Amino acid sequence: MTHSKPSLYTALSPALLHLYDVNNAIVVIVDVLRATSTIATALFNGAKCVIPVDSVAKCIELGRQIDGITAGERDGMIAEGLEHGNSPFEYPREFVGGKTLVLTTTNGTKLLHMALDRGAGQIVTGSFPNLGAVCQYLLAQHSPVVLGCAAWKDRVNLEDLLFCGAVIHQVKKHFSINCDSSQIAETVYLEGKKDLFEFMKAKDASHFHRLSGYGLEKDIRYCLTPDVAPVLPLYENGKLIVL
Amino acid sequence: MTHSKPSLYTALSPALLHLYDVNNAIVVIVDVLRATSTIATALFNGAKCVIPVDSVAKCIELGRQIDGITAGERDGMIAEGLEHGNSPFEYPREFVGGKTLVLTTTNGTKLLHMALDRGAGQIVTGSFPNLGAVCQYLLAQHSPVVLGCAAWKDRVNLEDLLFCGAVIHQVKKHFSINCDSSQIAETVYLEGKKDLFEFMKAKDASHFHRLSGYGLEKDIRYCLTPDVAPVLPLYENGKLIVL
Repeated sequence: MTHSKPSLYTALSPALLHLYDVNNAIVVIVDVLRATSTIATALFNGAKCVIPVDSVAKCIELGRQIDGITAGERDGMIAEGLEHGNSPFEYPREFVGGKTLVLTTTNGTKLLHMALDRGAGQIVTGSFPNLGAVCQYLLAQHSPVVLGCAAWKDRVNLEDLLFCGAVIHQVKKHFSINCDSSQIAETVYLEGKKDLFEFMKAKDASHFHRLSGYGLEKDIRYCLTPDVAPVLPLYENGKLIVL
Repeated sequence: MTHSKPSLYTALSPALLHLYDVNNAIVVIVDVLRATSTIATALFNGAKCVIPVDSVAKCIELGRQIDGITAGERDGMIAEGLEHGNSPFEYPREFVGGKTLVLTTTNGTKLLHMALDRGAGQIVTGSFPNLGAVCQYLLAQHSPVVLGCAAWKDRVNLEDLLFCGAVIHQVKKHFSINCDSSQIAETVYLEGKKDLFEFMKAKDASHFHRLSGYGLEKDIRYCLTPDVAPVLPLYENGKLIVL
């Protein structure tokens, strides 16, 4: 163990985030299906910024105040009173370019605010569509890292773990990783990486099950595809912007 | 998904136990290194019962009252004031036969009391030394199951996850498993099962690191060996007894 390397930890659920010191760390918010995939996509497609809010009421109010697009889901469906949902395909360049997206989701925005409340040094968001951008940023910063899975109502999920495993596999030589959750994530990722979609299907991942029941297999395939929206969303002054 | 099959969930940390309904379930307490391995071993070697207590003070007091063997650890070392530690090798038949063991450990006994407080239907303990006995019991009961990992101070650990994976691999056809943590556990177990000791070493599991630093590789090897103490410890009236 080389002590000059910064540490890297993985919190597999928001209910485990408090176990890790986030004060001087970069916290990567991971909500693969679908919040952080959609955030990367909207910003890659030219959105001015994404404002994550933790309730539907705030989303509606803020959306009206700033003339933003209100978007979000509860339990995987468009939340009542909002204009748009949580699918990356709803945010092509011709629609989202130059606009502000006000977004609320079941798990991802909750975790982001939790990291903020705990005094996270920096907050960025990660998903397969911006995997490479996240890894490059982590390698450039030489700071401790906490990968935070949004999970599903605090239950560990497969897709967020797979993303953490993908990050760890790319950056591990440059970090000191004394964290079994990280080892578990990388092990499962290496097992599934040949075809993440088929792996999720074969494992009957609970979220796969839930979303494919809504006819969202296309979303799932996209959200498991690396580097199709290569930007780094960084949280600053209440907004996610492209670094 | 066949709805007549009982459910099986895995709680990877005590901090996640509250997410699962334990009221009509069998909760399997898993603390592979070393509490539940030692419990199975002591009972297999003829101990009358094992009384898990959650503090060193209670351990000393009760040990005196009932003339039991006081045993336990804090942070992997024999706790001050107790006669014995947490190694299965301290409890051969000639020492422990016919005696009562009063045991307190950092994580395992804490989780057991948590399951009790949450109204668990039944509580049993699981470890590789009694893997087969646990699986047989779960298959015979046709009840919902929650596999509860003791973890390390709420941080997910590799060895407890491996044990859950081993159980799941043996019983999964008879349960309805809509639980990503269970899928993750089985995936990692299948990856490591050829040689669990070498797998733990290769992954530099944090607990492996901690215990091997104390010269306890022999304990680790034993605690990863299936079916060398084939009994089912069942919690009843404050005591773990052989079913």
